[in-house]
Formats: sequence, C-alpha cells, structure tokens
Amino acid sequence: MRIPILKLNQYLLISIQTELDDQTALQFQEDLLGKIHEEGSNGVVIDLTSVDMIDSFIAKVLGDVVDMSSLMGARVVLTGIRPAVAITLIDMGIKLEGVSTALDLEQGLASLQQELEG
Amino acid sequence: MRIPILKLNQYLLISIQTELDDQTALQFQEDLLGKIHEEGSNGVVIDLTSVDMIDSFIAKVLGDVVDMSSLMGARVVLTGIRPAVAITLIDMGIKLEGVSTALDLEQGLASLQQELEG
Repeated sequence: MRIPILKLNQYLLISIQTELDDQTALQFQEDLLGKIHEEGSNGVVIDLTSVDMIDSFIAKVLGDVVDMSSLMGARVVLTGIRPAVAITLIDMGIKLEGVSTALDLEQGLASLQQELEG
Repeated sequence: MRIPILKLNQYLLISIQTELDDQTALQFQEDLLGKIHEEGSNGVVIDLTSVDMIDSFIAKVLGDVVDMSSLMGARVVLTGIRPAVAITLIDMGIKLEGVSTALDLEQGLASLQQELEG
C-alpha cells in the first residue's frame, strides 16, 4: 500500500497512519521525492501522531528521506512523535540529527512558514 | 485498509489516493464520523484528485457521509473531482445535490474558512 501525500499550497503533508513495514517505507521515500520534484514543493510535514513504533530500519529511512528532500531543496519537519517512539529512538542511539520536529501538524506547518516565508 | 484523516486546526483533511472498494468506503465513513466527534471539527475537505472512478455505491456512500457529517454539525467540501468522474456521475444520474465542491484542497479549505469564519 502507498501512503497518501497531500499538497497544500507549496507544501506537502503526510500523515502516517499505518504500520510502516520496510517495503511501505521505501515506497513512501520514492513517492515523496517524486512528488517534491513534480510539485516543486519546498516544505514537507510528516506527521507521526498515529505511529506507535519505529524500528531502526524505519528510523534510517525517515532520516534518509529528510536528507534526500533537503538535497532537492525541500525542508522536512517531523511532527507528533509519541513518547514511546522518542524513548525507543534514543534508547537505540538514533538521534535523527539535524531533523526539525514539532508537536503537531499545525505547528509543523507554522514552523515551515516561519522558516521559508520569513 | 483505512484512509488517513489529517487534522489541521479545526478542520479535517482527507485525500483519497486508493481505489475505494465498498468495505474501504464504509470504513472511511465510520472513521470520519468518529473523528469529527472526537476532534469537534466543524469542517472537512475530502480530496478526490487521485480517484479515477466512482461507482454508484461509492457515490452514495460519499453523499451519505456529507449528510451525516452535516447532521453532526460539520460542513464537507469535496475537491478535485476529475472530468471522467464528473462525467460518470452525471451519466449515472447522480447529482450529489447540496454537496459543496471546489477545485483543489487549497480552494476547499478557503471555501470552508469563508463559510465558517465569515
């Protein structure tokens, strides 16, 4: 299955509400980069509110997607990381360095707007 | 599978990017009404940009979901109806009467804001 990517003005919004298996995560990576290219988006919010668990592979894919989007000129903000997910990531030594985060979708969008629109 | 429902401020955003089979459509109806109740949302945008085909059952479910949401106090705007979908709906005699529509997600949100925030 594919994760839907919404376009709102120049931004892309993604809410991950499914268990991210390896194949879905890689498909999402490809879809998102394609969509950034296609729509000329300069900002992306990935909302993880509904994600209960992230393993090291998924964390790597998410980190990579942020770096890849950045290379393409799009800023990514991760939002809604749950306590359990934050705990697991740090326990696994995964820091998602250089990745912007925010509490929820609204604040993620606000943070993009502030950064990109000044 | 379930269709993700995003919350943005007091609105709910849904982009349907999968073939809507009967079961998925009914599950979506239930999920959306539950989410309206849970979040106290007063506006919903359902984006159909990626939907290539709608049959009479799906059209009925969509029409019903608009009426049900309206009973609960939430305004629904359908956006991104493709030419082929519009042609099929009218050919089948389905008019989605009383349903607000807009060109895309941005315009759907703008129309909700205009109606609900004055």
